[in-house]
Amino acid sequence: MTTVASRFQGVIPPVVTPRTADGAIDVPSLENVTKHLLDGGVSGLFVLGSSGEVTHMTNTERDLVVQTVAGVNAGQVPVIVGAVEQTTNRVIEEAKRVIALGADSIVATSLYYAISNAQENNTHFRSIAAAVDVPVFAYDVPVRTHFKLPTDLLVELGREGVIAGVKDSSGDDVSFRQLLLAAKDIPNFDIFTGHEVVVDGALLGGAQGVVPGLGNVDPAGYRRLFDAAQAGDWAQAAAEQDRLADVFEIVYTPKAGRMSGNAAGLGAFKTALQLMGIIKTNVMSVPMLSLDEDETKAIRVILERNGLI
Amino acid sequence: MTTVASRFQGVIPPVVTPRTADGAIDVPSLENVTKHLLDGGVSGLFVLGSSGEVTHMTNTERDLVVQTVAGVNAGQVPVIVGAVEQTTNRVIEEAKRVIALGADSIVATSLYYAISNAQENNTHFRSIAAAVDVPVFAYDVPVRTHFKLPTDLLVELGREGVIAGVKDSSGDDVSFRQLLLAAKDIPNFDIFTGHEVVVDGALLGGAQGVVPGLGNVDPAGYRRLFDAAQAGDWAQAAAEQDRLADVFEIVYTPKAGRMSGNAAGLGAFKTALQLMGIIKTNVMSVPMLSLDEDETKAIRVILERNGLI
Amino acid sequence: MTTVASRFQGVIPPVVTPRTADGAIDVPSLENVTKHLLDGGVSGLFVLGSSGEVTHMTNTERDLVVQTVAGVNAGQVPVIVGAVEQTTNRVIEEAKRVIALGADSIVATSLYYAISNAQENNTHFRSIAAAVDVPVFAYDVPVRTHFKLPTDLLVELGREGVIAGVKDSSGDDVSFRQLLLAAKDIPNFDIFTGHEVVVDGALLGGAQGVVPGLGNVDPAGYRRLFDAAQAGDWAQAAAEQDRLADVFEIVYTPKAGRMSGNAAGLGAFKTALQLMGIIKTNVMSVPMLSLDEDETKAIRVILERNGLI
Amino acid sequence: MTTVASRFQGVIPPVVTPRTADGAIDVPSLENVTKHLLDGGVSGLFVLGSSGEVTHMTNTERDLVVQTVAGVNAGQVPVIVGAVEQTTNRVIEEAKRVIALGADSIVATSLYYAISNAQENNTHFRSIAAAVDVPVFAYDVPVRTHFKLPTDLLVELGREGVIAGVKDSSGDDVSFRQLLLAAKDIPNFDIFTGHEVVVDGALLGGAQGVVPGLGNVDPAGYRRLFDAAQAGDWAQAAAEQDRLADVFEIVYTPKAGRMSGNAAGLGAFKTALQLMGIIKTNVMSVPMLSLDEDETKAIRVILERNGLI
Repeated sequence: MTTVASRFQGVIPPVVTPRTADGAIDVPSLENVTKHLLDGGVSGLFVLGSSGEVTHMTNTERDLVVQTVAGVNAGQVPVIVGAVEQTTNRVIEEAKRVIALGADSIVATSLYYAISNAQENNTHFRSIAAAVDVPVFAYDVPVRTHFKLPTDLLVELGREGVIAGVKDSSGDDVSFRQLLLAAKDIPNFDIFTGHEVVVDGALLGGAQGVVPGLGNVDPAGYRRLFDAAQAGDWAQAAAEQDRLADVFEIVYTPKAGRMSGNAAGLGAFKTALQLMGIIKTNVMSVPMLSLDEDETKAIRVILERNGLI
Repeated sequence: MTTVASRFQGVIPPVVTPRTADGAIDVPSLENVTKHLLDGGVSGLFVLGSSGEVTHMTNTERDLVVQTVAGVNAGQVPVIVGAVEQTTNRVIEEAKRVIALGADSIVATSLYYAISNAQENNTHFRSIAAAVDVPVFAYDVPVRTHFKLPTDLLVELGREGVIAGVKDSSGDDVSFRQLLLAAKDIPNFDIFTGHEVVVDGALLGGAQGVVPGLGNVDPAGYRRLFDAAQAGDWAQAAAEQDRLADVFEIVYTPKAGRMSGNAAGLGAFKTALQLMGIIKTNVMSVPMLSLDEDETKAIRVILERNGLI
Repeated sequence: MTTVASRFQGVIPPVVTPRTADGAIDVPSLENVTKHLLDGGVSGLFVLGSSGEVTHMTNTERDLVVQTVAGVNAGQVPVIVGAVEQTTNRVIEEAKRVIALGADSIVATSLYYAISNAQENNTHFRSIAAAVDVPVFAYDVPVRTHFKLPTDLLVELGREGVIAGVKDSSGDDVSFRQLLLAAKDIPNFDIFTGHEVVVDGALLGGAQGVVPGLGNVDPAGYRRLFDAAQAGDWAQAAAEQDRLADVFEIVYTPKAGRMSGNAAGLGAFKTALQLMGIIKTNVMSVPMLSLDEDETKAIRVILERNGLI
Repeated sequence: MTTVASRFQGVIPPVVTPRTADGAIDVPSLENVTKHLLDGGVSGLFVLGSSGEVTHMTNTERDLVVQTVAGVNAGQVPVIVGAVEQTTNRVIEEAKRVIALGADSIVATSLYYAISNAQENNTHFRSIAAAVDVPVFAYDVPVRTHFKLPTDLLVELGREGVIAGVKDSSGDDVSFRQLLLAAKDIPNFDIFTGHEVVVDGALLGGAQGVVPGLGNVDPAGYRRLFDAAQAGDWAQAAAEQDRLADVFEIVYTPKAGRMSGNAAGLGAFKTALQLMGIIKTNVMSVPMLSLDEDETKAIRVILERNGLI
């Protein structure tokens, strides 16, 4: 077969956004994270995603982050940028701004805060795609938007060339598999799972790639998992996945009830990167708490038993 | 008793935002709506609320709306403006902008899209209040934010002077009553219900006011309801409420499944105002559908039987 | 107008089910509770409701409870009995059994565990009503069944004489008011609120009665509230309601996270009745925890400040 | 290692319950389904599961179904029976009855209708296990019970020998994988997925078996999928899974909105079995609708293209 492979596949981590002790974007640390990911063999960079705390950033901060990552990357891999806004025209404004700063592709969710339906989201994605000249990915994340993008809508939008693919963080493996099957014959339509611990099964089912927050911590591990799957060595893929699931235990180290799930998960990634010497602090965006000393110690144990420090 | 009454009480409708046929903000129609509300005897104007389609507006549009309403109002009643953004620093930016344009007070929701908790929302409201010099109201709207502001947090923030009151659209009348009781002794702490058809009961329970979307259509009716309640004439209040509940039937005229609940409700208010000659079109923000001819006819019937046209 | 008033109106508490220290139904205590309620001036008794722990009882226990309450009541007020089962034919079996034991009317929920829809619940209530010869009330309790009975279905069933009324524990005061309005002209159709702290507003809106779990503790208080409302003395009704809302604080005494909301609320009612000398223990059905000594002390304080002990 | 394999693994379909045209249990058809499943190479039979419409059956009907299936099976494979009741003591009564009728193991959910928590469900499963002398499986089905069994509770119960395994219909593939990993070293602890279209991934992750409703229609297909996985031929497993996902399309043939999801899915399985000549009607339990002629035709097309008729 001589199909030209899509540019969007493989391991595409959602880049975390380091902050300095006083809460500013820590540009040198962000540059380090970007290098760490490229060194780990990632095939793309997803900037301004949920794991990047996009929702907690002002527009000025968002711009700085895109410029920084795009600058270090210098065209090595595609840079996919989230245009995370609540409604159509606001997404379009956001998309145009980040494209001007170097985005090779943009990612948009369904409407949120607004109470929408399938018809409105259909118009939403068509309006966005019509307004920009880069590929648009749909990001299905009902735990945040409280709207599940219907499989038949995603397939229709894919088939008509409105969207270039889907980042699935729906937590619904049944609809994910059904999407993979229904979209199988759409050329260059790429479907990514956003879930860290079920990547082997997602790839076995035909997914083109993975956007794992944990990929910030262990990009090389996800690359090995992806390569094993590509080679058809599924036992190896599953073994690597199980190891990564153990690393993922870092997100459960925060004391029960002390912080939001959001802060716990993203804070764990940052704390791991701090322990690995890649970023300077584990400071989170206002109003999220950061992991404390005890929680950091617990993460150290997990990283050590997995050979990451 | 010689308590100085709070400036924030009574009927404070969330002002709808008319658009022209081509989707721009229709400034003359917005001016007319504002006059219609002032003529109806409202005691405040809530601008950039959900009923105002704030979520669907760009920042440029938001600014134009605040300026227009504040201009017509010219200080007659307090102008309360929604700073509807997903996280703390973004709300603060928004709040500062609208205050510069004439907001006498701002309204902020819990975090959304972000998955937060009570501690984060506590910090959230404290950070916002510290950053601005006008009263801040908490807007509890879990159907949109998917986070219910806990009663004890609201009372704590009220007691410490962080927030000046609450706009409750929680749909939870039990917690609403408990908030009224728990906050009874906080001076100048004002609690509004956002629900159109249970205002008599809310006022009987001690609420200071109401922010009804339907108040755009029949501000005078809500004023009569409020006045009857103030006078202790509860039978009259209930009768007025029942009449307004019948007017509220306009929101159920759209054909089942044709449009989102959002578009149906707000579209019905706009269609009614169009039929009443106050605004020029019933056009909704992208990507929402507008009510069609049949639906408009059904609304005319309801308005006629209630003597509104 | 000379309409004969419905037999079902006023204060109809859901009778709690006392247990002995070893977990058996405590018949003498149950007899005492029944007398306490009749002495308090209730106009009906709701047996085998959620507050009666119906869900945690075996059929043998359910039968014993119905017989005991019906025996003490001896026809003084109507006995309404919950036929709480997950699907139609199981409800019918249950209903026939409790009617044979003395139920004057039965209460049935929507289907649960089963994932149903409006059409199935329509058939459900019609099948139940066709199978029994006592009035059937629909119990709308989506927090347990996860299905909200639609207003138009309830009105249709009422208008056709399938159901005799609705016990509303939906937590949705908007739909409750809309049901009251839509059902206004159905003769002898009785609508009860199941919520303890919003009874004044419910009666102002036209409700026929109230089924308050807290009515076990203070039946006379709810009777005074109802009588004030009947007399049109709404200020007095609201004052009584506010006092009852303070008594209701007993349900928040259990330490955060120690027990389920179910066990906390019902356990608080039982603990209050134990402190008042009406029942012997505050033991809950397996697997629920009972309130401990500290929590009991906190309840004593609330009862004392409200003059109940 | 010479561990004796658990008796509970492989393909264990939840047996559907055929009814006659007048709604009675169709015993000969049920015997046929049982033979069809045994012929298809299943390694166990799950009786009185959701797919068996257990929730819609009276106790008399439940007994008849267990006796019938156990009679045909005659000890060939283990018979696992659902004791589907809302609280502990009711489950225990149910369990004892079905064990007396031939159940080799029972399956119990969390509490439902009751609003419970982890502690109550811990006591719940311990009480059940203490009361019966066959293995107890936990059935995690939050879409019906609205309580997700926590992974750490399941692991604790497994490690202490309270439960023999888990049937997971949680729709949460992340927690499923984490359960597989956390329970890996518990001897003879068996974890089944209840989801039809993600079985290859579940087995790759280490699941011991699958309980697919669709297994009624194509037991041999699931057996081939399981055998391929056991043999490490994951490409073949995925191909078989994709074919079965196409067969699963039968559940989407009912016209949108005509019936509940429950009735649509189970009705599709029955209709397929009717078309295959295994059962006589596709009649559903009251109050569910059955599939109509058009829907039956659509199912025929799917079965034909998959070589099942």
